[in-house]
Amino acid sequence: MTRTYLDWNATTPLRPEARAAMIAAMDVFGNPSSVHAEGRAAKAIVERARAQVAEAFGALGADIVFTSGSTEGAALALAGRNLNGALVEHDAVASWINPTLNVSADGAVEVTDPVSSTLQAANSETGILQELPEGLAVTDATQIFGKLPFAFSWCGAEMALVSAHKLGGPKGVGAVVLRQGVDLPSQIKGGGQEMGRRSGTENLIGIAGFGAAAEAATRDLADGMWDRVEKLRNILEKELAESVKCTIFVGKGAKRLPNTSCFAVPGWKSETQVMQMDLAGFAVSAGSACSSGKVKASPVLLAMGYDKETAGSAIRVSLGPTTSEDDVLRFADTWAAHYQKFRARAA
Amino acid sequence: MTRTYLDWNATTPLRPEARAAMIAAMDVFGNPSSVHAEGRAAKAIVERARAQVAEAFGALGADIVFTSGSTEGAALALAGRNLNGALVEHDAVASWINPTLNVSADGAVEVTDPVSSTLQAANSETGILQELPEGLAVTDATQIFGKLPFAFSWCGAEMALVSAHKLGGPKGVGAVVLRQGVDLPSQIKGGGQEMGRRSGTENLIGIAGFGAAAEAATRDLADGMWDRVEKLRNILEKELAESVKCTIFVGKGAKRLPNTSCFAVPGWKSETQVMQMDLAGFAVSAGSACSSGKVKASPVLLAMGYDKETAGSAIRVSLGPTTSEDDVLRFADTWAAHYQKFRARAA
Repeated sequence: MTRTYLDWNATTPLRPEARAAMIAAMDVFGNPSSVHAEGRAAKAIVERARAQVAEAFGALGADIVFTSGSTEGAALALAGRNLNGALVEHDAVASWINPTLNVSADGAVEVTDPVSSTLQAANSETGILQELPEGLAVTDATQIFGKLPFAFSWCGAEMALVSAHKLGGPKGVGAVVLRQGVDLPSQIKGGGQEMGRRSGTENLIGIAGFGAAAEAATRDLADGMWDRVEKLRNILEKELAESVKCTIFVGKGAKRLPNTSCFAVPGWKSETQVMQMDLAGFAVSAGSACSSGKVKASPVLLAMGYDKETAGSAIRVSLGPTTSEDDVLRFADTWAAHYQKFRARAA
Repeated sequence: MTRTYLDWNATTPLRPEARAAMIAAMDVFGNPSSVHAEGRAAKAIVERARAQVAEAFGALGADIVFTSGSTEGAALALAGRNLNGALVEHDAVASWINPTLNVSADGAVEVTDPVSSTLQAANSETGILQELPEGLAVTDATQIFGKLPFAFSWCGAEMALVSAHKLGGPKGVGAVVLRQGVDLPSQIKGGGQEMGRRSGTENLIGIAGFGAAAEAATRDLADGMWDRVEKLRNILEKELAESVKCTIFVGKGAKRLPNTSCFAVPGWKSETQVMQMDLAGFAVSAGSACSSGKVKASPVLLAMGYDKETAGSAIRVSLGPTTSEDDVLRFADTWAAHYQKFRARAA
């Protein structure tokens, strides 16, 4: 059966540019910390990728500390700081916050004290974008990087979290980006890599892939790739709204990522929908991809004030650069057909 | 110029088996935490690698928690526990210990209270092996895994640290191995991956490479590959001892890794030797590969009671499966020739 992948916010296929960079890096086997020629060749790959990420993320002059991904980055940037945050944050961030910030019905987070707060740039489930206040301590930029223009240097935050696998890079590599001079005490200690902020032999192949993916993603963005994706997302929502009138679209009135649609039919459980769509050949999700098997009403939707039934009936469809109009129309038809079955059973 | 890589304890070339597994994994792009078919296919790769690592490490029935390498593993297993340890430990471990354990002149560490102690299985600089006492809290098995038979289930320790890139896998992936039922509070929180012990989307491609490398390394070990390497190491030391009579071999009387030789000519600085050998085409090292540019007398040798001059004049040559007798003989000749120049200058 043909599979149609509509879960790009969970993770993305590896870009050809990342694949090529990773395969090339497989032949460079030195330890970047070794002073001999083999070590220096490896170090050069790490530094090239660092420059690529800095350029792509509008972070020239900022420090890029490579991590194993945004989850490690969140621990590095947030643990022990007890920053204020909202419950629309990803679990990796929400694990460390003082959850005092209010969320409006359309998902906007009100930050009262930026210096003591963390705020995501875009939500993974709803795609809703936030206005980042000047002086913000930390922003989780994992979902926005590569999908919308975003320049760290102008974003107002002191630190940002990014991850390679959301923009066509490999899983297991990311970075904390921070303004020069900002303090970042290490949590993983030892050899003193990453200027002492994150020890451990570098994920050389993964970092090479991250750099190449970031560069390619930014080029695609400038070429208008995500404008095309946004049109498809809008077609999807129009189709769904026409075929299932009671569909609730989350955040439709807010500024959103161009590729994300989160919608609910109260009573038709998220997990049932995800499984039915999977069996029909479509990969979509309920909430963020967390540890296997975890099924609960989306904390993001609950934080926005949705009731438990609605929050437990929402699914996310997230499109990507290779998504076609045919993919979107077939999904809409299939989903609507399953909705009719659900209604027939419920009647 | 031909390069001869004699720094296998710093890191290893990627094994063909690991390379193939990684390239195959590049086409499996789901998030292992996603419940749909793409996610399950990714999860299967992680679980296959977990089984390969468990089998290769003699750890069937134990838990394998994938990390970004032994440095992260050390933080996960050791931070906040203040375990007793010795200063022969790698910096990644030494950063977390209460350094109270005595080291004998031949490098043996005396553990008085195993339950409150950590002890490496093999030293990265000298290759010296330790007897692990029953009930030991944590062992750093990074250097022994793949070079000598080692079965976690029989090693006496509750937890062990391992890393893929020391046995032909990629850099940036490793594991904490622990007996079932042993407590391991998470430090990186979020999606609840690795049974809640280490959150974050898995390094899918790296983990696939780790599994394949572990399997291949264990097969090579059983086939006697390292017996051949040990013969070459012994040839090397015989040549060096004959050509430069004043060479001090560290740990020569102790049980050692089969591939490692650590030796010093007091007064001929480690960094000078490493640079001269590099220019002559040989990659060797002084101490463990740490953050770039760090040059200091080896804390390992100081802990064994060597004076500062000797500890600051030691280099490590570490061989691997593709090292040839010709490599070893050419190195010995080159090193001895440089020694003559050093003596001439010093005279």
